[in-house]
Amino acid sequence: MERTKFVLDEKDMPTFWYNILPDLPVPLPPVMHPGTGQPVTPNDLAPLFPMALIMQEFSPERYIEIPDEVQAVYRSWRPTTLFRAHRLEKALDTPARIYYKYEGSSPAGSHKPNTAVAQAYYNRQEGVKRLTTETGAGQWGSSLAFGCMLFGLELKVYMVKVSYHQKPYRRIMMETWGAKCIPSPSLDTNAGRTVLARDPESPGSLGIAISEAVEDAATRDDTHYSLGSVLNHVLMHQTIIGQEAKKQMEMAGFYPDIIVGCVGGGSNFAGMFLPFLKDKIDGRKPDLRIINVEPASCPTLTKGLYAYDFGDEAGMTPLLKMHTLGHKFIPPPVHAGGLRYHGMAPIICHVYKLGLVEARAVGQLATFEAGLTFARTEGIVSAPETNHAIRVVIDEALKCRESGEAKTILLAHSGHGHFDMAAYESYLTGKLADYEYPEDRVREALASLPQVPTA
Amino acid sequence: MERTKFVLDEKDMPTFWYNILPDLPVPLPPVMHPGTGQPVTPNDLAPLFPMALIMQEFSPERYIEIPDEVQAVYRSWRPTTLFRAHRLEKALDTPARIYYKYEGSSPAGSHKPNTAVAQAYYNRQEGVKRLTTETGAGQWGSSLAFGCMLFGLELKVYMVKVSYHQKPYRRIMMETWGAKCIPSPSLDTNAGRTVLARDPESPGSLGIAISEAVEDAATRDDTHYSLGSVLNHVLMHQTIIGQEAKKQMEMAGFYPDIIVGCVGGGSNFAGMFLPFLKDKIDGRKPDLRIINVEPASCPTLTKGLYAYDFGDEAGMTPLLKMHTLGHKFIPPPVHAGGLRYHGMAPIICHVYKLGLVEARAVGQLATFEAGLTFARTEGIVSAPETNHAIRVVIDEALKCRESGEAKTILLAHSGHGHFDMAAYESYLTGKLADYEYPEDRVREALASLPQVPTA
Repeated sequence: MERTKFVLDEKDMPTFWYNILPDLPVPLPPVMHPGTGQPVTPNDLAPLFPMALIMQEFSPERYIEIPDEVQAVYRSWRPTTLFRAHRLEKALDTPARIYYKYEGSSPAGSHKPNTAVAQAYYNRQEGVKRLTTETGAGQWGSSLAFGCMLFGLELKVYMVKVSYHQKPYRRIMMETWGAKCIPSPSLDTNAGRTVLARDPESPGSLGIAISEAVEDAATRDDTHYSLGSVLNHVLMHQTIIGQEAKKQMEMAGFYPDIIVGCVGGGSNFAGMFLPFLKDKIDGRKPDLRIINVEPASCPTLTKGLYAYDFGDEAGMTPLLKMHTLGHKFIPPPVHAGGLRYHGMAPIICHVYKLGLVEARAVGQLATFEAGLTFARTEGIVSAPETNHAIRVVIDEALKCRESGEAKTILLAHSGHGHFDMAAYESYLTGKLADYEYPEDRVREALASLPQVPTA
Repeated sequence: MERTKFVLDEKDMPTFWYNILPDLPVPLPPVMHPGTGQPVTPNDLAPLFPMALIMQEFSPERYIEIPDEVQAVYRSWRPTTLFRAHRLEKALDTPARIYYKYEGSSPAGSHKPNTAVAQAYYNRQEGVKRLTTETGAGQWGSSLAFGCMLFGLELKVYMVKVSYHQKPYRRIMMETWGAKCIPSPSLDTNAGRTVLARDPESPGSLGIAISEAVEDAATRDDTHYSLGSVLNHVLMHQTIIGQEAKKQMEMAGFYPDIIVGCVGGGSNFAGMFLPFLKDKIDGRKPDLRIINVEPASCPTLTKGLYAYDFGDEAGMTPLLKMHTLGHKFIPPPVHAGGLRYHGMAPIICHVYKLGLVEARAVGQLATFEAGLTFARTEGIVSAPETNHAIRVVIDEALKCRESGEAKTILLAHSGHGHFDMAAYESYLTGKLADYEYPEDRVREALASLPQVPTA
């Protein structure tokens, strides 16, 4: 039996983003200013972000209306389809019901345009002409290139150097949409020059690339900075996913027992689970399980410290209370470039600390084994990031086979792997490596955590 | 204004393929047996194809029911979306209305699975265990790998050597779905060995790869051959596209004045236009224009001879009455690998000869210029093949700007270009070449046309 589709009509697409802040049982720890030791104010952030997004970052409103122009863009590919994975279920011989919400049908091939489009829109509304950002494997950079193309903004992307050279296709996609993309660390910023002076062969990291993009934006009047994950407003934009999925699970006739997604900065999975988490907080679905999946080689939630840290390598951002491996940590070069980040969205860390969600770390080889099973049943060649979530979905479905329980599992499928085929080849030819947890490097990185007031 | 969607409900997906044969004003010339000089019989084809497909090839029935299992697979991504290209129209400042039917949302990223799934199904039904096929850039090979994965068939793909090395990603996709893929010419067949003995550095061609795949299938009892274009049954399977598009154009409220598509073997575009062509043959839409677009460097319809020729390089196939540049012709290495074929679907050649459709040849640089315009307006990075059609759509829309006519133009958008980003880079960096029409090579190839009775 083939996968079946649950297709939401355009008119049923949500017209509001969901903001978890007012529903949290304990308030989110504030973002701190590293200089003053006080919570940051909207004005502190104004050099980097448009005021509309800053207001969203701290908003007490539960629902925030999606502007008409952003809705119109969303509707050019949304609502996305929810699938029932009949063939995967059969291959696993499991009584579990597996559903996946597929974000790979967006023009950029992932969930990232949901926020890229919104961020480009608000910047254009406030007269900004140019944006900067960082990207790892290029999912975010290409999505923001798409958003900037739509709203007529210039874009410069600092792309982690190892990915810039190993994965040229997403860079070319950015250029096809009109963006400029350079390898990071670069000679274009103080942050980049400092790293290169220390290590001319630096492969780069997301933390370094963020430093470069932030510096570029902070030092030019016509330029703002755009972040593809981590911050509250980014997660909020992604809640379009979870709100659609809730309606589609109603069409399917089942409420999920387990929701699974991969987390790098956390926006894709939070976008899926936050609208469901509300039901758990409200007490209507106390048994709902939410599993965040991360790489064993970059295990932010499962092995990091919960502490204030910088979002970038150079220490230019405000301080975020989050699970962190240390802002100086450079993760091993796993193919899931989108999961190679030292920190994690404060909202996810907060609800994890409160025991509302779980976390699990998986090894790279096991994720590609799962991805191959998914491709050979459901037909979708998934992104290496997504394969992390697929691994845990399969593991949970196999537990159901043991226990005989017909649980309903919902997978947040963040995107396709068309630009990651070299990773599949590496796996298929037996060349793919697993990476040990780099305990020593994490210890070293955590030793340089900033000294700040803890909330 | 963003592109708007016309989404057909699953229950409105056509359940029959449309067969143009009974509606042709003049019968299609028969397929001839090169040995006997007589029309081929179903038994002649039985070593290569399942009887169900052979019967479809010659069927006098106007509508052929799509088997339930094939419909179920189709529904896993179909009906595909029809879009109105508002942003492209605005960028061109044209009064024309531009619509495109997008086949890039299939698991393999093109229209090819429409027939791959059907062919795999019928072969499985008749107990075949293994298929062989050829592929150029890999759109067809990856689609058949997907189809064979669904129905549990082994697959060996002979991939044109120049593409095998230059475009590894579609090969890896085939392997991810479980197929075996080797470069052609290979040492695995007499056809391949013969070519290599003559020219060890041969870059291969679709004609050579077909010879290898046919020989492999003809010499093994458990194996059939599968062709991704050209033949009547293949075009028929693709009519799901045009039938859906007709319903969607009704939703949009306009009947097309001009339909445009790219042609290599011709199945994608014939699948789109045949259901509309019926209206023209019936006299209901006498002014409908249908434009087949081909590469200037491989101008089969516009410069080829209309004559009986082999479908493959070695002369192992039956003889088809078609426009041909000669079965020994090796086209220049344009990026649109799917359009590098010496022949053309006999049905298309026939209706072209009857004056029912038009043909136009365009240069490679102009197609990428058009593709970039499309990417920077509609957001889709298109396959190099599709860019040929986009070029002509833009040209026709610009003519409307001159004349002030609000014509309705329908584009058959055959797929995305995610595996062709190197071609975009080549264009963006000014390295992409145009190829002259290789007149001498065509003259030489045409001199070796087979001597056979002409119908």
